[in-house]
Amino acid sequence: MSIQERMARYLPLIEETLQRALQTPCVALAGHHGMMQYHLGWLDEGFRPRVGEGGKRLRPLLCLLACAAARGDVQVALPAAAAIEILHNFSLVHDDIEDRSPTRRGRPTVWALWGVPQAVNVGDALFALAHRTLGRLAEHDVPPERVLAAMRAFDDTCVALTEGQYLDMSFEARLDVSVDEYLAMIEGKTAALMGLSTGLGALLAGAPAHTVESFQRFGQRLGIAFQIEDDILGIWGDEALTGKPAASDIVEKKKTLPVVYALGSAAGERLRTLYRQPQLTAEDVPSVLALLAEVDAEGTARRMAEEAHQQALAALADTGLSEEALAPLRELAASLRGRRR
Amino acid sequence: MSIQERMARYLPLIEETLQRALQTPCVALAGHHGMMQYHLGWLDEGFRPRVGEGGKRLRPLLCLLACAAARGDVQVALPAAAAIEILHNFSLVHDDIEDRSPTRRGRPTVWALWGVPQAVNVGDALFALAHRTLGRLAEHDVPPERVLAAMRAFDDTCVALTEGQYLDMSFEARLDVSVDEYLAMIEGKTAALMGLSTGLGALLAGAPAHTVESFQRFGQRLGIAFQIEDDILGIWGDEALTGKPAASDIVEKKKTLPVVYALGSAAGERLRTLYRQPQLTAEDVPSVLALLAEVDAEGTARRMAEEAHQQALAALADTGLSEEALAPLRELAASLRGRRR
Repeated sequence: MSIQERMARYLPLIEETLQRALQTPCVALAGHHGMMQYHLGWLDEGFRPRVGEGGKRLRPLLCLLACAAARGDVQVALPAAAAIEILHNFSLVHDDIEDRSPTRRGRPTVWALWGVPQAVNVGDALFALAHRTLGRLAEHDVPPERVLAAMRAFDDTCVALTEGQYLDMSFEARLDVSVDEYLAMIEGKTAALMGLSTGLGALLAGAPAHTVESFQRFGQRLGIAFQIEDDILGIWGDEALTGKPAASDIVEKKKTLPVVYALGSAAGERLRTLYRQPQLTAEDVPSVLALLAEVDAEGTARRMAEEAHQQALAALADTGLSEEALAPLRELAASLRGRRR
Repeated sequence: MSIQERMARYLPLIEETLQRALQTPCVALAGHHGMMQYHLGWLDEGFRPRVGEGGKRLRPLLCLLACAAARGDVQVALPAAAAIEILHNFSLVHDDIEDRSPTRRGRPTVWALWGVPQAVNVGDALFALAHRTLGRLAEHDVPPERVLAAMRAFDDTCVALTEGQYLDMSFEARLDVSVDEYLAMIEGKTAALMGLSTGLGALLAGAPAHTVESFQRFGQRLGIAFQIEDDILGIWGDEALTGKPAASDIVEKKKTLPVVYALGSAAGERLRTLYRQPQLTAEDVPSVLALLAEVDAEGTARRMAEEAHQQALAALADTGLSEEALAPLRELAASLRGRRR
């Protein structure tokens, strides 16, 4: 099966499992679940059904593809795949509050529509429901010890997410963040969850520990590459494709990899002078871009993304599975490389 | 052993388990854990050790007392007791953001000191660490099926907490909240977690299902009584004892039981006229108090608290355990009755 055929088969299963996890029969809670369903992309802001993108579902897809590659039954891994996507969406709802982002995927964010108090609670509800959904693994024929191992990995990832988020916020006030510190931050914020996705897929397929670890490392390295490409798009991306204003990460003074790298380079002192201003405006963007170009910050970031990508492929080879079994994951990884949105 | 002797034995065990769960060896995360430890009462706002109250630890105490009453080993239940207290503190950190409360237990709240973005993440970290702490049950000799049952009950309670919080916020804009709706709200916001505390204590003692259910119901009914008494203190409490300004719940127009009851009584129309004002001030307090007195809202609330208290004691008797085994829980329940802080 090609990756397209797999996606055509898995995406509806994922969507159905997600919808079951986030619905309620209780009329008094319709608004509570309505906000969650709005965020997942199924409802508009008046809670009417809508058609349109609600996210790529990349993480649950990775989970099911890893499960299938390790010769597991994807039905068994579905609760884990859905739990991971719900957890990811919990973190997006709270990130949007923390970053004061008014829009996501071209639509107003939950806090922008219903206020910070409701949005904090909507995120908490998604966090709680992610755990409850994962708990449904026990309904399938998964041995209890394996369910507990899945829960332990899940909880470790939840902790890592909040640590990455803390580091990210603590970087806001600093101009001396090192590339290593940046890598530790995205390890928690992005890579841990993608590593969990592939690791749990293999675990629930009943793969041996070494194979699970290789799958987990594949997702984790892919996550590092994914985040660095995201950083590149946040500065040099095409607004029409990304849905975010061009150079938005510069105006928001985000400590993404190209900036962190340049701050530690020969252009560092001149860049710090710009970044010490209380606010950066559109007029400062050309000066920042010129300094980033001077030290080839984009090329450096691209090389680091490529390196992480190669490490991901090496980890995939380490699983010891056949090329045929691994082909869909290779295809998915290739489609993320040099992406433009 | 009297309740005092039990408390002297259990409280240090609880505190030690909590401290182990919330510490980090990582220097880069010292601030992240520092904020959590501040909230738990161990550090001051400069992250220096402090001595002073950080909460009553009522829920973990209930958990260990229930475990001991059901002839279990409290060491086995300790991870659950600590996880419950951490979960409770997650909900307090987020409640304080949602209610814009500047102080708690006489100290500035986390968001008031470090801002909303960090406070959202501190709450999330406590939520994640609560789950990880519960997962440590698997390190003891607890059968995996029982650990999974404990996790399922824990996750159901997390979901109930966010539902109760949603209902509470949805009541803010309404003047037609019924007493039944109020009871459904505090069931999620307060009673579910106290029911979990006693239920998990009995479950981890290996008690049969019927006994676990009776313990759970005891905690749940005690939680209803506890919340109603809290509502009474929020209106008629002594500022010097509660640490909250007198009648603060009136000025904040909270839909607590006495107000919900009075809004549905003969004084309802006059009370609604007052509550329709965009703001209530200290000058409105005497008028509100007079209307509450006219329909004996305090007496009604006290009778409802007493009824829930009697139901709690009946559930305790239903456990079928000896009076001697149940005595400490009876004593604790009695100490909460008619409390003044």
